[in-house]
Amino acid sequence: MNVLAPQSSFSNTPVALSPSAIVSIDLQIRSYIIDIGAAFLGDPQLYSNLPHASSVVIVSNTTVAPLYAQPLQSALQARYAKVHSVVLPDGEEFKTWQTLNLIFDALLQHGCDRKTILFALGGGVVGDMTGFAAASYMRGVPFVQVPTTLLAQVDSSVGGKTGINHPLGKNMIGAFYQPLKVVCDLDTLKTLPMRELSAGLAEVIKYGPIADLVFLDWIEANMDALMARDGPTLAHAVKRSCEIKAWVVGQDERESGLRAILNFGHTFGHAIEAGLGYGMWLHGEAVGCGMVMAAHLSQRLGLIDAAYVARLTQLIQRAGLPVVGPVLDEADNAGRYLDLMRVDKKAEGGEIKFVVVDGAGSAALRGAPDALVREVIDGCCV
Amino acid sequence: MNVLAPQSSFSNTPVALSPSAIVSIDLQIRSYIIDIGAAFLGDPQLYSNLPHASSVVIVSNTTVAPLYAQPLQSALQARYAKVHSVVLPDGEEFKTWQTLNLIFDALLQHGCDRKTILFALGGGVVGDMTGFAAASYMRGVPFVQVPTTLLAQVDSSVGGKTGINHPLGKNMIGAFYQPLKVVCDLDTLKTLPMRELSAGLAEVIKYGPIADLVFLDWIEANMDALMARDGPTLAHAVKRSCEIKAWVVGQDERESGLRAILNFGHTFGHAIEAGLGYGMWLHGEAVGCGMVMAAHLSQRLGLIDAAYVARLTQLIQRAGLPVVGPVLDEADNAGRYLDLMRVDKKAEGGEIKFVVVDGAGSAALRGAPDALVREVIDGCCV
Repeated sequence: MNVLAPQSSFSNTPVALSPSAIVSIDLQIRSYIIDIGAAFLGDPQLYSNLPHASSVVIVSNTTVAPLYAQPLQSALQARYAKVHSVVLPDGEEFKTWQTLNLIFDALLQHGCDRKTILFALGGGVVGDMTGFAAASYMRGVPFVQVPTTLLAQVDSSVGGKTGINHPLGKNMIGAFYQPLKVVCDLDTLKTLPMRELSAGLAEVIKYGPIADLVFLDWIEANMDALMARDGPTLAHAVKRSCEIKAWVVGQDERESGLRAILNFGHTFGHAIEAGLGYGMWLHGEAVGCGMVMAAHLSQRLGLIDAAYVARLTQLIQRAGLPVVGPVLDEADNAGRYLDLMRVDKKAEGGEIKFVVVDGAGSAALRGAPDALVREVIDGCCV
Repeated sequence: MNVLAPQSSFSNTPVALSPSAIVSIDLQIRSYIIDIGAAFLGDPQLYSNLPHASSVVIVSNTTVAPLYAQPLQSALQARYAKVHSVVLPDGEEFKTWQTLNLIFDALLQHGCDRKTILFALGGGVVGDMTGFAAASYMRGVPFVQVPTTLLAQVDSSVGGKTGINHPLGKNMIGAFYQPLKVVCDLDTLKTLPMRELSAGLAEVIKYGPIADLVFLDWIEANMDALMARDGPTLAHAVKRSCEIKAWVVGQDERESGLRAILNFGHTFGHAIEAGLGYGMWLHGEAVGCGMVMAAHLSQRLGLIDAAYVARLTQLIQRAGLPVVGPVLDEADNAGRYLDLMRVDKKAEGGEIKFVVVDGAGSAALRGAPDALVREVIDGCCV
């Protein structure tokens, strides 16, 4: 599978986002837009084209709600008579059925019906859980993504993957379910803890090696500005990331092929998250380290050279991300990684499929001998 | 909404089903067929066109598995290397997240992947839960319905409604998710308890008043043969019911309009089930009684006369179904019914929508004043 993105159709020139940028996701009747801009979340204009409903519900968490629920609520009250809210505990370890059920309880207690719109205000966990709640409540109600973390803005809020974790595997239970729209307010990135900014940068970096070497160059040149949260630089990173994701998802909504490349670094990363226990490392941290491992695997498969591995590793490190994997089992660390990776959703008949990259900015899905994978893990963990 | 089924395109002449009848559900890329016949479940031929997979899983319950899991397993072993099984507790009261999770646990423990096919072997509860598990496991794996009750064969296995109950409402959490195919083995109806045969007949009767008065005449003329489980008569009842359901679902897969007519009797029925506690009355029993109530409401709205109400009531009674509603609250019975019905999925902005029928064999969705509904409930409950 050779999957070069049509780079010529996109711009890598940073643009000041004033007042807004729009990226479209083309999925026929499920198409929608991503609005990207500053001071957006509390602007009633952003919600003026949404369908009518007798009530809407803001789903957020204990960290984000105190910061941003009020402006969103005010904006929605201009259009909807009843604006309820649900505040979930914060953290990947709460991405469970029990927490999801808090949303269902609230929807039923408030008498929400099939037209009620859910608003996911928060990071990836809030977005994934709210999306799955929307997919499942009364067999499907509409929802809107209002991502407040870099990771959610560049990745998890776009493309309709929703779900919760199972003790035996990450995101094992969920649905492909598209939002009505995505509203990315860049101002929310100002309050993001540094660790979460780094985690988001992992997903930004990802788009370079899998689809766009020009963007990879741009990220390298602008990493200091990104880490310093320079507004226009972050704006371009969000826009370009969304463009690439939209391009991939538009071709393969349900991950029957191409879309799997977006999981570069995720197979190793999911093993780290599950092995340490959800919430120990942030998802983006595990993906950052996972990309280093996937790069080493790509090298051992003869797809890239050592210099390219070093280049990616250095960039990931500059983003403040871990580049050395944790030891998950003192006795047989590689064996533990392999066991955890065998329940990955990309696996088939017990064979793990890895996203590997070549030097030309494209990625593919491949199996690899256990012995080779063991060498990679042994070389990448301390 | 006037929704007469194109009666001329269907046959109400009973036919001996030898070797099989096929009803098609036309849903574009999600189209599938219902195979109806005797000695079917253990016939490898029925499964020979299914996709390849490294493993499949039979989901059944403690009542059905001892009777029919073995022949199905043997038939599937002819095609699939690994045939696992999951046996759930039997009953509507187990249609919960906890039971659903038993399926996820088994799928993950067996290392099932995105190509694993689930087989729902049992009645409506097994079918609804297996379907929702299939919709949600790894965001969607294929599944096949093998209904073993009359109710499941004529209604719940067809059309893709899947889900579980919430303490505050029936089928509140679920998905629209279509099976690869439906295999109706009429022989399984021989072992069905009498009470469950009656419950299935409630859904058969339903198709008459909402869509096909010729079929209603036929059911009246053949009720004794149906209660005596005459093979060709049951075969025709299943086939004609599936034809009508296929016609409705083919026009409105996600219940944005027409499909709601299939819920004739269900609004009152769901209140009975929730009010008594799931499992006290069978779903079909509650629907039977609910149709009597919905007929009375239709009469009070001026749509049908008393003679038609009496005709439907008598037919429902002949099927061995309750025609008098239970008292759910000694202090304010009608108020309790109304509260329970307000969380019905057809409700909008707190207004309950009822499926009402006219005398011409068609149905529509309508609101009704609380006072009128109270009169109906007071007149129908003891």
